[in-house]
Amino acid sequence: LQLDVLKQVERPGFVACDSMNLWIGMKRASLLKLLRHVDMILLNEAEARQLTGESNLAHAARAILSLGPKEAVIKKGEHGAMCVSRSDCFVLAAYLLEKVCDPTGAGDTFAGGLVGYLSSVRRIDGDAIRKGIAYGTVLASFTVEGFGVERLVRVSRSEIEKRLGEFRRMTWF
Amino acid sequence: LQLDVLKQVERPGFVACDSMNLWIGMKRASLLKLLRHVDMILLNEAEARQLTGESNLAHAARAILSLGPKEAVIKKGEHGAMCVSRSDCFVLAAYLLEKVCDPTGAGDTFAGGLVGYLSSVRRIDGDAIRKGIAYGTVLASFTVEGFGVERLVRVSRSEIEKRLGEFRRMTWF
Repeated sequence: LQLDVLKQVERPGFVACDSMNLWIGMKRASLLKLLRHVDMILLNEAEARQLTGESNLAHAARAILSLGPKEAVIKKGEHGAMCVSRSDCFVLAAYLLEKVCDPTGAGDTFAGGLVGYLSSVRRIDGDAIRKGIAYGTVLASFTVEGFGVERLVRVSRSEIEKRLGEFRRMTWF
Repeated sequence: LQLDVLKQVERPGFVACDSMNLWIGMKRASLLKLLRHVDMILLNEAEARQLTGESNLAHAARAILSLGPKEAVIKKGEHGAMCVSRSDCFVLAAYLLEKVCDPTGAGDTFAGGLVGYLSSVRRIDGDAIRKGIAYGTVLASFTVEGFGVERLVRVSRSEIEKRLGEFRRMTWF
């Protein structure tokens, strides 16, 4: 389905793909075919290990790059996220939350925040991807604060920018 | 024992303390007495939860601060570390390692690198603690690369500084 949708896009500029355990296990051949047409793949820790058979995440990320994507983004939930490309490696802790209500949808919000940010920049390079991952992290932190999407639908642009600033300060050394 | 050692120190400038599950469980009263004389406590995730009864690490850190320490450092192994004080909050991912040989001693190396750095600065403030946690993280990454201390005893100052620079680049956004 994803490959079929992609084929209908004329001259895609940057293709990001999210998959899951079910397709990795049941539709492996189709998924591998799709990955050859993808710039960025987003997987969680368990999916990255399942897809590659590598337990070390640095090795898993390199194995993912050998399947086609130029950027391997691995989501680690409350432990943050990482992105590995052929020439770069980025690791980021999660935003530390006092209030954790419901983690449902955090990974999808992360992906949406990241891809949404990338769609707003002129040139998608390593620095843009890093900033996109920070935006994805911050956006996901709002999702987790409420049940379902109740917090996310109420969040304002200024709240996102404010939390991004706090997150910068939270991770700076 | 730790409190007895501390009492023999004339005018301690900054006191950092590491404990473990055994003392949290078996010698809780003594540990709580000690914590009132400590500036910084270092615990791993499980110990922080055991000590405070809080599963959320932000809540656990605040509960630790109420016991006396001004800085609560929580070590999360491959997932990094965090430090919470009354006015500041710092989270840091771990250095992404291709070669993981033996994690034994990583937490103690982290503590040694952090406290060693703090002993070298004029003034221990939030920024110094952040940089100390980065040094501890980098130093621990060498420990993990070899069996026991075999990699750590061979590491040079320039290797540490080089990896700290790589780590900065790895975490920057």
